[in-house]
Amino acid sequence: MSRSKRYLVLAEGRSDDPHYGKTARGVIRYGSEPVVAILDSTHAGETYGAIPVIGSVDDAVPFGPTTALVGVATAGGRFPPAWRELLRSCIAKGLDVENGLHEFLSEDAELAELAATHGVELRDLRKPPPGLNVPTGEQLAVQARIVLTVGSDCAIGKMTVSLELDREARARGLSSVFVPTGQTGIAIAGWGIAVDAVVSDFVAGAAERLVIEGAARGGDLLWVEGQGALIHPAYSGVTLGLMHGSAPHALILCHLAGAFEIEGFPGHPIPALPDLVALHELASLPARRARVAAIALNTRDLDETDARAAVETAENDTGLPVDDPVRFGSARLLDAVLSALPALP
Amino acid sequence: MSRSKRYLVLAEGRSDDPHYGKTARGVIRYGSEPVVAILDSTHAGETYGAIPVIGSVDDAVPFGPTTALVGVATAGGRFPPAWRELLRSCIAKGLDVENGLHEFLSEDAELAELAATHGVELRDLRKPPPGLNVPTGEQLAVQARIVLTVGSDCAIGKMTVSLELDREARARGLSSVFVPTGQTGIAIAGWGIAVDAVVSDFVAGAAERLVIEGAARGGDLLWVEGQGALIHPAYSGVTLGLMHGSAPHALILCHLAGAFEIEGFPGHPIPALPDLVALHELASLPARRARVAAIALNTRDLDETDARAAVETAENDTGLPVDDPVRFGSARLLDAVLSALPALP
Repeated sequence: MSRSKRYLVLAEGRSDDPHYGKTARGVIRYGSEPVVAILDSTHAGETYGAIPVIGSVDDAVPFGPTTALVGVATAGGRFPPAWRELLRSCIAKGLDVENGLHEFLSEDAELAELAATHGVELRDLRKPPPGLNVPTGEQLAVQARIVLTVGSDCAIGKMTVSLELDREARARGLSSVFVPTGQTGIAIAGWGIAVDAVVSDFVAGAAERLVIEGAARGGDLLWVEGQGALIHPAYSGVTLGLMHGSAPHALILCHLAGAFEIEGFPGHPIPALPDLVALHELASLPARRARVAAIALNTRDLDETDARAAVETAENDTGLPVDDPVRFGSARLLDAVLSALPALP
Repeated sequence: MSRSKRYLVLAEGRSDDPHYGKTARGVIRYGSEPVVAILDSTHAGETYGAIPVIGSVDDAVPFGPTTALVGVATAGGRFPPAWRELLRSCIAKGLDVENGLHEFLSEDAELAELAATHGVELRDLRKPPPGLNVPTGEQLAVQARIVLTVGSDCAIGKMTVSLELDREARARGLSSVFVPTGQTGIAIAGWGIAVDAVVSDFVAGAAERLVIEGAARGGDLLWVEGQGALIHPAYSGVTLGLMHGSAPHALILCHLAGAFEIEGFPGHPIPALPDLVALHELASLPARRARVAAIALNTRDLDETDARAAVETAENDTGLPVDDPVRFGSARLLDAVLSALPALP
């Protein structure tokens, strides 16, 4: 029996958190399944866009959710212990649970037993598929043009930029596919591999598998969701493995206007944009050199005048097309990327 | 009851393999425990240095091994199915087994049961310790000078160079410690974490933990064993995570003289040495920029005249001190590295 999925997003105490917001906003804005309520007792009674924020699983029941989504992205992805009670409530109310953390619910004996009792499913979005290995080189023969978002930090819009450009490309009639590489992308698109949860030897192999699948899903233009940052003190390995395994023809460099330090890592500076462009091009796979085709500037912290000025400054500094696709539309960045891509053989 | 360890190295059909040789040679040359025999029926009756090559586990018994070492490093680290019978024989003869592959013997129900029956231990050298997470930044406060070997490919001598320079430094009376990051290094030194087997989000965190432990073991000069290569199509993510997590003050770039393509990955070129130097320095952690202090040139494929010419050419091309520490001694490279390191605070 298939029932159409309706999400309850679990955000207890976290709906203000920018990392948390990434998951919630992503699924609300880009997902194909509706979010019917958000659970955060610290904001109960408010709304998030048009979506009610409620205080308990009981309060969610009238909205008819089928699936609780755990999108809390803590550093390292561990489970806050206080959440167990919340998860037990969801399971007891008959909700499936989708979990984006490194800690797998399906391997938790108590929750797995409870889920079996109530006939619900525990789906770990970050659990790697079996049989991963190193890349074969097959990704270099994929009949698609591949674009990867990279960035100066985490949680600054790499996934969003990939999704916006994919949407714009499809609106123009192109055979475009978004390739999910993280838990939120997977929740949005319904497929993918969380490359940050893969054994590090197999990150590039997982990324290769994803672009092959993206092409098999009919994409001749693939937007690979970026992860981490080459200069990030914690996640750079994921970024480089993804970059080499997905073998993009072009990169879009994402940057939060006004940011000079890695978020959550004081003392870790972000180099200037021209240095970041040089680093990414030099670090691209020697067998398929990638150029930065454009810069996506996240201007969320600026008013419109300052946002336009920041775009212009970045263009002058780098000589590249720069825009904020969320704020000003993605047409210009898509034009820039398409003109930088090779023709399909 | 502790018995001193005596290794039987399992190399069935593989003692010619350069990757295999890495493990066998490493443990024989640098390990603190003796290798009493090598098992490879295709070369039975020969010797490897002074060590007998034998054809079966029965033939090994007279040499009194306590521990079988599986060092076969296949791409991706999977177990050749034909080896199961060999492992069963070792266990049945009362040998502990140390395994360097991604496939864990301790999680194999049949072998684990057999081991319990015979009272032997199955040790998976690549099995990550519990509780890994992202780095905290504590590695930047470690009271030690940190040197990481990096390279243009795998299996070209990064571990060997770290071990040789550590040995030379200790011979000079320095408080020097080799920091193992892979299965062979762990077999040699008896501690460490195989960073390539860690969930990719935690590679930098594992590397941080290793330099903290290296300092706690009394090292104020740490030689971190390098892994993979920044330009390697399969393993680059491991390399960058290790580089950022271990936060070296200086790098030694290892290169196989005459190599222009990544081994086993046709069509994947190795850039010129000056480009590799620039890439590594640009990719180093912005909070602790590292310079390439010297180049270790592996001249194993050249005669002595050509080897000296290759060293001179590389010096002219890069302006850096270059030497082959295995062939010509490590004194010169150690001088170069020490002079490039900052004083301890």
